[in-house]
Amino acid sequence: MLNDDTISAIASSPGSGAIAIIRLSGSRAIEITDQIFCSKDKKKKLIDQDAYTIHYGLIKDQNEVIDEVLISVFRAPKSYTGEDSIEISCHGSLYIQQRILNLLIKTGARTASPGEFTQRAFLNGKLDLSQAEAVADLIASESAAAHKVAFQQMRGGFTSDLKNLRYQLLSFISLIELELDFSEEDIEFADRAKLQSLISTIKEKISELLNSFELGNVIKKGIPVAIVGEPNVGKSTLLNVLLNEDKAIVSEIAGTTRDAVEDVISLSGILFRFIDTAGLRKTDDAIESLGIERTIQKIENAEIVLFMIDAKDKQACEKVFEIKERAKDKKLILVVNKIDKSESIFNEKISDCKDFETVQISAKHKQNINVLTETLLKTVHYTPAGKSDTIITNTRHFELLQKAYDATLRVDQGLTAGISGDFLAQDIREILNFIGEITGEFTTDEVLGNIFDNFCIGK
Amino acid sequence: MLNDDTISAIASSPGSGAIAIIRLSGSRAIEITDQIFCSKDKKKKLIDQDAYTIHYGLIKDQNEVIDEVLISVFRAPKSYTGEDSIEISCHGSLYIQQRILNLLIKTGARTASPGEFTQRAFLNGKLDLSQAEAVADLIASESAAAHKVAFQQMRGGFTSDLKNLRYQLLSFISLIELELDFSEEDIEFADRAKLQSLISTIKEKISELLNSFELGNVIKKGIPVAIVGEPNVGKSTLLNVLLNEDKAIVSEIAGTTRDAVEDVISLSGILFRFIDTAGLRKTDDAIESLGIERTIQKIENAEIVLFMIDAKDKQACEKVFEIKERAKDKKLILVVNKIDKSESIFNEKISDCKDFETVQISAKHKQNINVLTETLLKTVHYTPAGKSDTIITNTRHFELLQKAYDATLRVDQGLTAGISGDFLAQDIREILNFIGEITGEFTTDEVLGNIFDNFCIGK
Repeated sequence: MLNDDTISAIASSPGSGAIAIIRLSGSRAIEITDQIFCSKDKKKKLIDQDAYTIHYGLIKDQNEVIDEVLISVFRAPKSYTGEDSIEISCHGSLYIQQRILNLLIKTGARTASPGEFTQRAFLNGKLDLSQAEAVADLIASESAAAHKVAFQQMRGGFTSDLKNLRYQLLSFISLIELELDFSEEDIEFADRAKLQSLISTIKEKISELLNSFELGNVIKKGIPVAIVGEPNVGKSTLLNVLLNEDKAIVSEIAGTTRDAVEDVISLSGILFRFIDTAGLRKTDDAIESLGIERTIQKIENAEIVLFMIDAKDKQACEKVFEIKERAKDKKLILVVNKIDKSESIFNEKISDCKDFETVQISAKHKQNINVLTETLLKTVHYTPAGKSDTIITNTRHFELLQKAYDATLRVDQGLTAGISGDFLAQDIREILNFIGEITGEFTTDEVLGNIFDNFCIGK
Repeated sequence: MLNDDTISAIASSPGSGAIAIIRLSGSRAIEITDQIFCSKDKKKKLIDQDAYTIHYGLIKDQNEVIDEVLISVFRAPKSYTGEDSIEISCHGSLYIQQRILNLLIKTGARTASPGEFTQRAFLNGKLDLSQAEAVADLIASESAAAHKVAFQQMRGGFTSDLKNLRYQLLSFISLIELELDFSEEDIEFADRAKLQSLISTIKEKISELLNSFELGNVIKKGIPVAIVGEPNVGKSTLLNVLLNEDKAIVSEIAGTTRDAVEDVISLSGILFRFIDTAGLRKTDDAIESLGIERTIQKIENAEIVLFMIDAKDKQACEKVFEIKERAKDKKLILVVNKIDKSESIFNEKISDCKDFETVQISAKHKQNINVLTETLLKTVHYTPAGKSDTIITNTRHFELLQKAYDATLRVDQGLTAGISGDFLAQDIREILNFIGEITGEFTTDEVLGNIFDNFCIGK
């Protein structure tokens, strides 16, 4: 499975910039670069240089100078991939990037597949599989929470406990298999009580992780929120107020995460994707004025519906019941706006709509915005201080943990029923394998292929 | 003019990628990074490390770990800017890039203006001004020729001769100014014959550079070419054949340089922007079938018009004269296609249209494509083997050289007319200043501002 050829790719983001990075990894990485590198005194060879040093010089294609570059030298096993590696820092023109990459390929390197550097890091034991997967999540992370979870996972995170439990289980299975060799003598090497207790611990741990997946998904992908309400009820004002709450980070990356139909706002590090409900038309018909038919699609795509209503709106309750009907399987939050103007009028009626979250705000005067934010976070079960190393975000992990959990149930039942060692061993093996597939201790080429195909080139 | 604060910016291209680079430059660059850097053993300080070394560790905001990074240390004066510098290589998520940059700013760095790193390199004497300008051109270069010219200019290129001539002229002016001190004694310290000869050399050099500007512009910006002709005359086939000629580089950067209306093809390193003339409609009227009215706009935007005609087209000459009328100020190349089918029929008529370039090809059979390519290159006066260090591409340089040239004419005339030293000195000063403005030996803050404002951030 280990390749001994040398791979190369552009590792900085696609496009032109001040600086671009081209990386190589493999046994010939340094030698190949030496063939196209020319130091200032024309004598220096990279192969003679220490690891973790930087060298200024020219990249040349025969006699043609392609660029002035800085070359970083890394040596096995102290590199990202665990192999000899080179990073070329060149001027970030597309032409130069492509010329240097082509030149490296011509000189003996091979174009790296997506994620192939990280795959090599995994194959060389620098990272386990879930850590490798976290690298891709880390690069894609757009919010504080997504970053925190991915980073924790990359640093070992939720798998360190699992691995530990798996090793304990491994010792039990040897003992049970030993029993099978002595089956006629009816000896129990494996202490059933201890096994039961270990299985309970594993079940509990897995259950905790499984329960974290919903939140994990929210953290990874952000949560779609539809703001629904009549024109002038204050939807834009609210969006702007929320946007300002988190200006520090979001406004600066907004250009890349916003598109025509979504305002992405990070609240306490969680991304909320506010689906634009512009285009509502006001009519005389109270129900039609909600524009339900036209916003129904948006509600369908949302997980949370913020239904905004004017505090002085006398038809509030009819509208609330209508939207409740339409958004049955959604988390509905009723936002009563403009309370500064007419708090009392709405309060008379609100008792009728008490069976879901209601927040009374003034978007204009920034009143109770923090209550709304907390309600949103409560709705997705997120607390900023929560332990991010017990959150899973990956569907593959979720499915394997689900299977492992089912196997723990079978072991549990088997132990209670006192079934024979060979059946027990079979279910325990399954737990081991499912957990092993998460960390990559037990896996197939196909699984690996699927995982690394989703990486970007150069990582 | 020199700033002693420390600047920072993201230097890799905007967007997320495998790796991103954040750079710092200034007297506190290393110290500031040390405050947020934590090495594996928690003891290592970057301030104690040698220049040109790389260090693995964590970036931390208080107790929160932001990323695992590699840090490159550079020390004054052996860095790009000539100052102490740091490059942080982090995971390329937008969130991480922004967090680290924000953290550096909070810790004492300042966000760099566009081109500020290169501006500091200039102010610290690492580059002259035309070299600094070439850095931006180099990053923007999309073709072999543009890259070659920008790279030459960055390495000294056309200014090295100019600087040398300027120094010679400087010594003359001191002599002439010495004469002015002794004006009553009528002594000539400056040898007028030698001065005349030097002025001639300068005039010649400047003239050569001025003449190169048209080609320089073509190299820098590419040259717009309209392919005009009836449907099925073979326009798409020709474009595909030309595209294949240069597949090595162009196809790989095509995604970034092509847009809906242009096929950008690099021929011998020169970019030709083929303006799409799709949408021509065939009618029975010979002239109308050219779709002249609908392609007139495209012809107007082009510098070269490739008029394609079918070798067996009996109305060829009428059409050729019509297009000639419409594209009066353009470089017109008549491309007779499908010569494999019916060479003789067209040849009878072609004598009438001999007063411009005609190339007979078969796009389908790839016949004479090289002749067409050569004709295109000849039309823009480009030879791949030409000296790229005598080509100017920059309008600012062109305008200053024009002014310097006018001043040399005045000196020339003055010398012939035997005018007095003080008038002579004035014109010579002008030459010195105009050339000095190109290299930055003589310049204003406003000029510098204009130049570096056009850079990308991080360079």
